[in-house]
Amino acid sequence: MAVSGNELGLVKVGLLGCGTVGSGVVQILRDRAELIARRTGCDIRVRKIAVRDLADPRYVEVPDEMVTTRVEDVLGDPELQVVVELIGGIEPARSFVMDAISRGKHVVTANKALMSTYGGEILEAAEQAGMDVLYEASVGGAIPIMHPLKEGLAGNSISRILGVINGTTNYILTRMAEEDMAFRAALSEAQRLGYAEANPENDVEGRDAAAKIAIMASAAFNSRVHLEDVYTEGISRVTPADIAYARELGYAIKLLAIASDDESGISVRVHPTMIPLKHALASVNDVFNAIFVEADAAGDLMFYGRGAGSLPAASAVVGDVIAIARNLRAGGREVGCTCFATKRIKSMNETVCRYYVLLDVPDRPGVLAQIASVFGNNQVSIKSVIQHGGGTEARIMLVTHRVTEESMMAAIHSLMTLPVISSIANVIRVEDEGD
Amino acid sequence: MAVSGNELGLVKVGLLGCGTVGSGVVQILRDRAELIARRTGCDIRVRKIAVRDLADPRYVEVPDEMVTTRVEDVLGDPELQVVVELIGGIEPARSFVMDAISRGKHVVTANKALMSTYGGEILEAAEQAGMDVLYEASVGGAIPIMHPLKEGLAGNSISRILGVINGTTNYILTRMAEEDMAFRAALSEAQRLGYAEANPENDVEGRDAAAKIAIMASAAFNSRVHLEDVYTEGISRVTPADIAYARELGYAIKLLAIASDDESGISVRVHPTMIPLKHALASVNDVFNAIFVEADAAGDLMFYGRGAGSLPAASAVVGDVIAIARNLRAGGREVGCTCFATKRIKSMNETVCRYYVLLDVPDRPGVLAQIASVFGNNQVSIKSVIQHGGGTEARIMLVTHRVTEESMMAAIHSLMTLPVISSIANVIRVEDEGD
Repeated sequence: MAVSGNELGLVKVGLLGCGTVGSGVVQILRDRAELIARRTGCDIRVRKIAVRDLADPRYVEVPDEMVTTRVEDVLGDPELQVVVELIGGIEPARSFVMDAISRGKHVVTANKALMSTYGGEILEAAEQAGMDVLYEASVGGAIPIMHPLKEGLAGNSISRILGVINGTTNYILTRMAEEDMAFRAALSEAQRLGYAEANPENDVEGRDAAAKIAIMASAAFNSRVHLEDVYTEGISRVTPADIAYARELGYAIKLLAIASDDESGISVRVHPTMIPLKHALASVNDVFNAIFVEADAAGDLMFYGRGAGSLPAASAVVGDVIAIARNLRAGGREVGCTCFATKRIKSMNETVCRYYVLLDVPDRPGVLAQIASVFGNNQVSIKSVIQHGGGTEARIMLVTHRVTEESMMAAIHSLMTLPVISSIANVIRVEDEGD
Repeated sequence: MAVSGNELGLVKVGLLGCGTVGSGVVQILRDRAELIARRTGCDIRVRKIAVRDLADPRYVEVPDEMVTTRVEDVLGDPELQVVVELIGGIEPARSFVMDAISRGKHVVTANKALMSTYGGEILEAAEQAGMDVLYEASVGGAIPIMHPLKEGLAGNSISRILGVINGTTNYILTRMAEEDMAFRAALSEAQRLGYAEANPENDVEGRDAAAKIAIMASAAFNSRVHLEDVYTEGISRVTPADIAYARELGYAIKLLAIASDDESGISVRVHPTMIPLKHALASVNDVFNAIFVEADAAGDLMFYGRGAGSLPAASAVVGDVIAIARNLRAGGREVGCTCFATKRIKSMNETVCRYYVLLDVPDRPGVLAQIASVFGNNQVSIKSVIQHGGGTEARIMLVTHRVTEESMMAAIHSLMTLPVISSIANVIRVEDEGD
């Protein structure tokens, strides 16, 4: 037996924010207190919760005297050893976190906006103060990924991370694929079910995924990647037709977050992507998230689970609180900032991949020859062409060989000037092992 | 930046065994030394390697003076802080590990036979001596699973683990499914490719998977499960016809390791299993492994990767060595034995699931009525029946509702005495959400 009762280390926790995730944290730490104590030797108690308004609805019952609207009641309480920041956004979260660190408190946060923007400064301040800042819940909800990236896989050189890391968009794309539904209709359904917010822009335009991939890329490649470094493109232009054509070609369309590292630098981007139906990420559906890691010793790994929700996110927060509590009891520290290098971040123009292009054209002799010559003039080589329909409403669907974004965009630009093309219906990047 | 050079903690490691995994460990710790040091602050050096025979082939070059045939040169070296045991099997591995612990060394092992048989005693001895014993590589190769089970998910109550955790059998079943190949032919191919051993019994009969699920169940359910507690059935009776029929019914056949925990006790078993094609485990193919965890707060999680091979297993060993090295540098301890409870282990007879039964029968009126009445008499309710063929060579394929193994086996026993049945071609358990 690992622990007898009287050796238990009592660890006192303060919360900033008590919305969906905060309520889950309170619930787990209360309902699972004995289990956690017996498993880890730590008696963890939430002692103080700062909220914006006492009248705001809470999803968990807490004694009145535990709740306060004064943040200082948490940050200024010398008894509290761990502060859990769950208010989200940059300010005032950033000031509160820095303040907590400077007052000798360890911090756990689920704040992806904050960690993808000021992660370097925060971890540096924590290092100076001898504090731990953990942020497992900021990426992939319940999925344990930051600990593997920073510690379990520390013997590996990681070349690439591919992630389906936004549940809202994955739900929408799954519905579009399964029900042949238009984007707007699928979005409305997601909103009705609570999977998308009233203002869905942050999810739908890829910004949420961009923050998460920035955080993972920083840990995997040991060089700081900021949210603003991530090229980001949302899913609002994807149509059910694209999804059907993709399937015909052997691909699924996912909003993929992609980070890769090679001699020429780091590439980080979020965009709708065709991936082979046989790839493990292709069958990650509905609100599920998955992170695919390509490591030199471990090989390919995938971590799959619920990327959002009260209890899944709270599970990750509690895991971090437990890690800190164990250190408080037994000594020891978590791995802090590992961005010891300063690698170049490539521009999107340098990115190399394959492209799917869907063109509306009248079915006239010579059209394809004109299109092919535009691609050829821009050094874009075509791998396959399929024509659908005919007459005045033909569609040409083509997939290129690997080419730089720069050449591809030049080709697209030239295509726009070609009178025989009615419209460029869509351009979607293709990630596979092909050339 | 986390670490400056002169703060580096030097950690000296000894290896017992230098076969495929050991060679990988030496290679990673040598080639990635600087990366590991900068990421974790630890300078980790392999100083001594004990092998059985100096003439045995090694897959990595090491200085002659580092290699010895005397185990005492490792265990008795006061400079070595960590001993990595990679000789496998119970003895002498067990004595060496216990000896290392008693001499104040931390231990990392990839030995599933040992940890699934003497894990309790070893972790207890380590606890008494204040040492860490880590064994991430004993389950799922490169896949980080023990740390999540013991720490990251410590706030969760885990109800079930489903694992595709033997690469050899998964490769064989994948080939059988994709190429309509017989078991023997697929096994021969696996042997030719080095995915199966000359004597494949340990893999093919499910014993390897049984050891791994025993180790995971112990950590997940906080009650010691031994290898001998696991009901084990191999894949040698699965035919390409079963796989084709399963697909017709919407299932894939996998060698599944299943551990579940409820009020009535723990159930742990390894057997060929039909799982819905839509289940994330159904598309885990070839030599890949995956572990599916059902947790109350986190929800469903899956960990996927390479379950075997020199570098993948070595990646996990190195992750464990790094965890210990970090503790040696900064203080702190890993979570040890978490089996604080003593839960009842259910007999296979109590297990409840659905069953697929394939019967060879002559196509005569009244046959189905006789079969149905045998099931009925044994309280087994039939969910669906499909007949293939006709004349004297008909096959009846049926799937039952959920029923205990005991009732099912009684029904099978009665079926055997039924003159109208030519043969019971196969009985395969079905795991799904149905009733």
